Amino acid sequence: MRTYEDFTEGTEFALGPYPVTREEMLGFATEFDPQPFHLDESAGAANELAGGLTASGWHTCSMLMRMMADSFIVESSSQGSPGVDFVKWLRPVKPGDTLTGSCRVASARLSAKRPTLGIAKMVADLVNQEGEPVLSCEYTLLLLTREGIAA
Amino acid sequence: MRTYEDFTEGTEFALGPYPVTREEMLGFATEFDPQPFHLDESAGAANELAGGLTASGWHTCSMLMRMMADSFIVESSSQGSPGVDFVKWLRPVKPGDTLTGSCRVASARLSAKRPTLGIAKMVADLVNQEGEPVLSCEYTLLLLTREGIAA
Repeated sequence: MRTYEDFTEGTEFALGPYPVTREEMLGFATEFDPQPFHLDESAGAANELAGGLTASGWHTCSMLMRMMADSFIVESSSQGSPGVDFVKWLRPVKPGDTLTGSCRVASARLSAKRPTLGIAKMVADLVNQEGEPVLSCEYTLLLLTREGIAA
Repeated sequence: MRTYEDFTEGTEFALGPYPVTREEMLGFATEFDPQPFHLDESAGAANELAGGLTASGWHTCSMLMRMMADSFIVESSSQGSPGVDFVKWLRPVKPGDTLTGSCRVASARLSAKRPTLGIAKMVADLVNQEGEPVLSCEYTLLLLTREGIAA
């Protein structure tokens, strides 16, 4: 199991591949983001910025979360996150896309208040099967140290 | 239908109520964020920061999206969003919580490149049934003007 000590500056984790299906896109949009261009091909085509049916941006964030969970978070001492510094939705994500990417430790330090808790700043990037960037995100990940796990 | 012209600085939209169910939390976590404290009561209790089973932060973002969609986005000229300036997960969201909140237009301007497209900076806040803040978020919303819709 990875602990805070494994999250040194510059450490990078590979993400994906994550195949984006029309069925999953419509399921997410129906539940959480029922805007026409997330639900209907012709409404998507009428939206110049979308240019067809597109995934909800929050769905793309959720796909990123799943890729990070599988890559390095579930088998770690993660204590969750207090928040996100930014998310950029750089290009539409469409049915049939396959997403891959990376997540890098930009910086890491121990909590001043709780020295068995580490605070890592993480930078994640996703691209589609053409290598085109679709999402960029920076967030904070909290992780116990080895001593914190033993306690 | 609301267009860019309706999103003047200071305009505020009420959000929710959104009842948070254990079933929906487990469904989201199983699909997108299978960290132990999002899936299992005892793992959540062992996480000092969570203090019990908690919703994935991305799930809370998705609930916010649904509340905004129902409140003012679906019946608008929304063209989606290029990104999020920040998300703060301020407190755990737990089964049985009921979330409400507001979303306010912090600023709005027309695109210099495309004068029928408006760019609104939106600030959203969610609280639980105790009135305790659980999420704060700032993002950009793109909206067509009335002229843009007619075109």
